Amino acid sequence: MGQAARAAARLMARASTAAKNRALRAIATQIEAQRAQLTEANIRDMQAGLAQGLDAALLDRLELDNPRIDAMIAGLLQVADLPDPVGEIENLHYRPSGIQVGRMRVPLGVVGIIYESRPNVTIDAASLCLKSGNATILRGGSEALHSNQAIAACIVAGLRASDLPETAVQVVGTSDRAAVGALITMPEYLDVIVPRGGTGLIERVSREASVPVIKHLHGVCHVYIDDRADPKKAFDIALNAKTRRYGVCNAMETLLVAEGIAAEILPDLAAAFESRGVELRGCERTREILPRCLAAMEADWTEEYLAPILSIRVVADMEAAMAHIARYGSGHTDAIVTEDYSRSRRFLTEVDSSSVMVNASTGFADGYEYGLGAEIGISTDKIHARGPVGLEGLTSRKWIVLGNGHIRQ
Amino acid sequence: MGQAARAAARLMARASTAAKNRALRAIATQIEAQRAQLTEANIRDMQAGLAQGLDAALLDRLELDNPRIDAMIAGLLQVADLPDPVGEIENLHYRPSGIQVGRMRVPLGVVGIIYESRPNVTIDAASLCLKSGNATILRGGSEALHSNQAIAACIVAGLRASDLPETAVQVVGTSDRAAVGALITMPEYLDVIVPRGGTGLIERVSREASVPVIKHLHGVCHVYIDDRADPKKAFDIALNAKTRRYGVCNAMETLLVAEGIAAEILPDLAAAFESRGVELRGCERTREILPRCLAAMEADWTEEYLAPILSIRVVADMEAAMAHIARYGSGHTDAIVTEDYSRSRRFLTEVDSSSVMVNASTGFADGYEYGLGAEIGISTDKIHARGPVGLEGLTSRKWIVLGNGHIRQ
Repeated sequence: MGQAARAAARLMARASTAAKNRALRAIATQIEAQRAQLTEANIRDMQAGLAQGLDAALLDRLELDNPRIDAMIAGLLQVADLPDPVGEIENLHYRPSGIQVGRMRVPLGVVGIIYESRPNVTIDAASLCLKSGNATILRGGSEALHSNQAIAACIVAGLRASDLPETAVQVVGTSDRAAVGALITMPEYLDVIVPRGGTGLIERVSREASVPVIKHLHGVCHVYIDDRADPKKAFDIALNAKTRRYGVCNAMETLLVAEGIAAEILPDLAAAFESRGVELRGCERTREILPRCLAAMEADWTEEYLAPILSIRVVADMEAAMAHIARYGSGHTDAIVTEDYSRSRRFLTEVDSSSVMVNASTGFADGYEYGLGAEIGISTDKIHARGPVGLEGLTSRKWIVLGNGHIRQ
Repeated sequence: MGQAARAAARLMARASTAAKNRALRAIATQIEAQRAQLTEANIRDMQAGLAQGLDAALLDRLELDNPRIDAMIAGLLQVADLPDPVGEIENLHYRPSGIQVGRMRVPLGVVGIIYESRPNVTIDAASLCLKSGNATILRGGSEALHSNQAIAACIVAGLRASDLPETAVQVVGTSDRAAVGALITMPEYLDVIVPRGGTGLIERVSREASVPVIKHLHGVCHVYIDDRADPKKAFDIALNAKTRRYGVCNAMETLLVAEGIAAEILPDLAAAFESRGVELRGCERTREILPRCLAAMEADWTEEYLAPILSIRVVADMEAAMAHIARYGSGHTDAIVTEDYSRSRRFLTEVDSSSVMVNASTGFADGYEYGLGAEIGISTDKIHARGPVGLEGLTSRKWIVLGNGHIRQ
């Protein structure tokens, strides 16, 4: 598979934008045509999952119902409509030596994606890799094997219909766990690995991979309400950041409040959270203001709840808030609510997270919201791609030099 | 050291451009003031090296004579004059939701540099990391320990004089090989490792590191002379690419010549190479044209000679040349000489190397020539930085979001 991917990558790198878009649309057509077969394959996985006693959340992620198939088709057409990043040349300029130097955006080569249960990731990942001119090896969860193979058949048919190499997208057809180990230790065939899934998977891949990894670990996101915050904005943002959705990585997990505004803002906010069933766990000073609030433990500050639970800490000032974020945060997304110009600039500059926000909900940390069109994940790494990773994150830039017989003295 | 570096990195990330430039100039002043001590420390290393029987090339790299000290000082002042990349905000634009989104360039954090013998790398690396707002841990070769510690003393004095944290640049003060192993496996304290040195060092670091690596492996560079090349440009470029300097990674190691032009171009070129003492090793068809040329073995095509040796292969056409480069090249720098418009475009697009050139010598693949001001190395990786790595390669970009109380629906 590695060799086939490497060969396909060379052809994909030179594939025209039109050919790649044709393939994406052909795959969408195949998925529509194979809807019954996809559903059937998915039912097999669901029944096996039920028999194995998978929990309800896992079964929900595994399910491929009609709305999800519709979303896969829509996603393919949307990626076809995105601009092609490959071949873009930036900053081509003359140097004193007379050569003209610039950078050209090129595919990474072969991208490995390792993911769990959700079969629709197969299409999301394949479409972004295809559009960015990469070959892909996909390794989904064993519980979704039949669904993934049915999707893979649609992809192969779409590639064939558009004269792109069939091995440009390959789905590992075994549920053998050793396949993951093999995939992440073949740097001669893979240029990057993107693990998508739980912390266990990502930590294993990071630890064992000899291929570079674009990884998304925890999202322990903070909102800091400064004493110069507009209370209305603070209320709206804190509520939205926590309660828009609970199981997402950009949800606020810890609310930091300046002591100068805590007594004014916390009671109303706590009432709003409680009315939505959010459990509050506060520091001592929080509990002086909110007597019914549970006591937060040290472990609460590093916990990614992904649930209707919120930890709250009253801090002296922005300095203390930034120190808390530096110590306990995960470098995902952190926001300040303030009307103070200098503090907003300092927070933006000094907080070292993949997204830093002023007067906006952490819920905006997302490839679609940022205008990337689609995302393959949100990177909490600093190297290569940081934050939401779209087509650009699946490319690299090489230098190009145009001369006219120039030699270096 | 890791903890101290992490703490210093937070302060360095917010250091003003003026403070960083002051520190660079103060270090230059210290080096000038400590010239005698640097020379004395270096003599100790040189004597120990002689006693240990280091070879002449290694002793040459180890030596810190007055011109090299001058170059260190000039380098520091030059980096001080470079624009500061930190804090640059790109493409801040409004999204339909009303938020304003952009990307801000930020330091990577803590950069580890592992290098061999040449003590001037201590200053090159420290100055680039300092200017890009990173903290640095430097681990030089054991044979240069006294020289590196004398340089480190100048750096600490310079940092102290300009109110930057002294631990922003730390030099590992032991020649214990285990220090390298420790350094490359502490991702909690290091954000990236840059190994600079021989293949053995780089392969060891790549294999064992759990910290991301920006690495420079082989430079097996090609010049392909197309049958539509201008013979004068082809002659000049091929000669320059090989003979400008032999021991550098951007030197041509294999010359590929289209069969349609080989008989015309090779005799003059071979005579020029031979007059400069370059040993030629050719394929069979090359040897039909150049009977005195040695026979190239399969191993010649992948060899980075770093010496006055050149392998030559006659190929059918550009397609065959690109296939040769894809198979045997190292993805460093490859050039075509041609007057053909479509071929120049195809070569630029399809050759997957960190620098791809048309009608220019591979010798231009260099941070200074590309306008980066200085380089910390030339990356043959595809992830993060590719080709010459300057200040920008030591930074990352985070997303910033400016709102006015915006919440996500």
